[in-house]
Amino acid sequence: MQTRRMVILTEGQLGTFSSKTAASLVRYKSDETVAVLDSVHAGKRLEDVLEVGTGIPIVATLQEAMAFEPTSLVIGIATPGGVLPDAWREVIHEAIEHGLEVVNGLHTFLNEDEAFARHAGRKGVRLWDVRQPPGDLDIGRHRVHGLPNLRVLTVGADSSIGKKIAAIEIDRAAREAGWDSEFVATGQTGIMIAGSGIAVDTVAADYISGAAERLVLEHKHRELLVIEGQGTILHPSYSGVSLGLLHGAAPQALVLCHQPGRDVMRNLPVAVPSYTELITAHESIARPLFPCRVVAVSLNCFGMSMDDARREVDRVEGETGLPATDCVKFGCGPIVEALAPLKPGTRNTS
Amino acid sequence: MQTRRMVILTEGQLGTFSSKTAASLVRYKSDETVAVLDSVHAGKRLEDVLEVGTGIPIVATLQEAMAFEPTSLVIGIATPGGVLPDAWREVIHEAIEHGLEVVNGLHTFLNEDEAFARHAGRKGVRLWDVRQPPGDLDIGRHRVHGLPNLRVLTVGADSSIGKKIAAIEIDRAAREAGWDSEFVATGQTGIMIAGSGIAVDTVAADYISGAAERLVLEHKHRELLVIEGQGTILHPSYSGVSLGLLHGAAPQALVLCHQPGRDVMRNLPVAVPSYTELITAHESIARPLFPCRVVAVSLNCFGMSMDDARREVDRVEGETGLPATDCVKFGCGPIVEALAPLKPGTRNTS
Repeated sequence: MQTRRMVILTEGQLGTFSSKTAASLVRYKSDETVAVLDSVHAGKRLEDVLEVGTGIPIVATLQEAMAFEPTSLVIGIATPGGVLPDAWREVIHEAIEHGLEVVNGLHTFLNEDEAFARHAGRKGVRLWDVRQPPGDLDIGRHRVHGLPNLRVLTVGADSSIGKKIAAIEIDRAAREAGWDSEFVATGQTGIMIAGSGIAVDTVAADYISGAAERLVLEHKHRELLVIEGQGTILHPSYSGVSLGLLHGAAPQALVLCHQPGRDVMRNLPVAVPSYTELITAHESIARPLFPCRVVAVSLNCFGMSMDDARREVDRVEGETGLPATDCVKFGCGPIVEALAPLKPGTRNTS
Repeated sequence: MQTRRMVILTEGQLGTFSSKTAASLVRYKSDETVAVLDSVHAGKRLEDVLEVGTGIPIVATLQEAMAFEPTSLVIGIATPGGVLPDAWREVIHEAIEHGLEVVNGLHTFLNEDEAFARHAGRKGVRLWDVRQPPGDLDIGRHRVHGLPNLRVLTVGADSSIGKKIAAIEIDRAAREAGWDSEFVATGQTGIMIAGSGIAVDTVAADYISGAAERLVLEHKHRELLVIEGQGTILHPSYSGVSLGLLHGAAPQALVLCHQPGRDVMRNLPVAVPSYTELITAHESIARPLFPCRVVAVSLNCFGMSMDDARREVDRVEGETGLPATDCVKFGCGPIVEALAPLKPGTRNTS
């Protein structure tokens, strides 16, 4: 199979927060990223803008990017409401004309746009609408809680708090520690990184846990599944998705993700619950259905000094009695260690 | 506005459980039901089959039903997967030809069927796909928790346990007790009875709480909203929908619905949690966002003698310390009494 060679479109919005999809792809798929397409930032060094991506060029036009022999154009920005801006239509058609796959995480599906669909059909290229759910989903049927593999779900105090990155980092650290592990993606950027997955916030409400169950069943041969969490079960906008994912994936272990200093929820005047409240809420809503506990805390100390981050990690360990770390700053060692006693095959003999 | 005069289609499946939608409509909209269309049961007395609906004829053909001057044909049965059986197409076309509105609670939408849509357009009749969500839904934004009205949500130990009927009965009893009350429907049969609502299990997962919030905002001028619950937050198939509804509707009071003897969840080998577990789970998952408590228990003692039901009501009152009743057998008085201290305007002065 041909390796994907991505051009990431961020047109004018390149940045750690303004182009979160692009930033994550560059962080975790730098070997597959051949260029960033952004006429405003063209010519700058990518690592100066994103802190990652050394050596990857920022170009002003798709024509320039073609010199790097890409296979895919990836839309690397989220838009308000997930709508496709008219200004991007031209570059998408240009990519199709060049035979590139187009990878799209917006709510607007390219396959449902007649002009794109016809053009892609004629050129024989794939339009990958990452958020398009499978057409044959069903309700969850509680079929995975008895599987012998270890399922870890990252859960959070809020949305956009580091659940995806924690899941990816835990998966990597677990592999390095010898686990047969896999990252299971449940959101658009995670799916682009993993190459597969289901955007659980897009499925019909009745099918949330069914979608999670299917993802687990698809990867059930793995010893460890590290599943990307969504939202939080205590966020008034997203709690349904979070709980459906929790009950559908039936994880034995949860890793609680938090950002020190985040006291109020994103976009809402609602206080972020305490660590204790979050741990109790997750464990007690799972317990009647399957045994499940929070085994570690993953902190997102972005913007803090190493010293301040270390102090915060120590403080949270003291408050919760659980191992804590910042997976990016200090690695995921403590989390993988916390999972060791749950390793399939060791549980019955320990 | 013309009063609806319904013919309810149950073709061969008429019964309290086999045609649940029909049974609920006959129970709560008998004044609007002019006939039941069921060639297998035609000629029988409806009350002998359903226990309700005295005097409503069962007819074998739509032609016969037309003598009762109906305005609507209502599909009164759920099918596996919510799919429309081919055998029903003819009677639906016949109803359209007669100028009848067609009311459909299946997952298959009549408006998306070209032949039905064209025929209905030509005759100027409405095809009401009850489960079709509004096209302009959004995420929940925690906008209703501060409203001064009282919001009561019926929650349950399992699906199909009496949440809809409890909500309708509480609304009725509250009106009789002088409340300015309204029943808010969240499922297909409830919507047919109320005449409006949103089937929250059909919306995109991200919009569950937004749909609930919209329903509350639409009726915010009422003193009391009695909101139909869905599934249970401890059912592995439906928990996401239940929690999104709870957090979106932001009720101050919950009525816990149960069926004595139901020890295992419907369609799944999962134990039904205890009353205490259910009460704790609901209250603790709401508390970080808004004050909310279970104020009463509604028991569905269908099939039990009056004596056995009374004993069970007493037993549950003892176990939970909450007022309990069977709304159908004994009325909803104890529940409405439990709501009295929460009546808007009295809360601050009591």
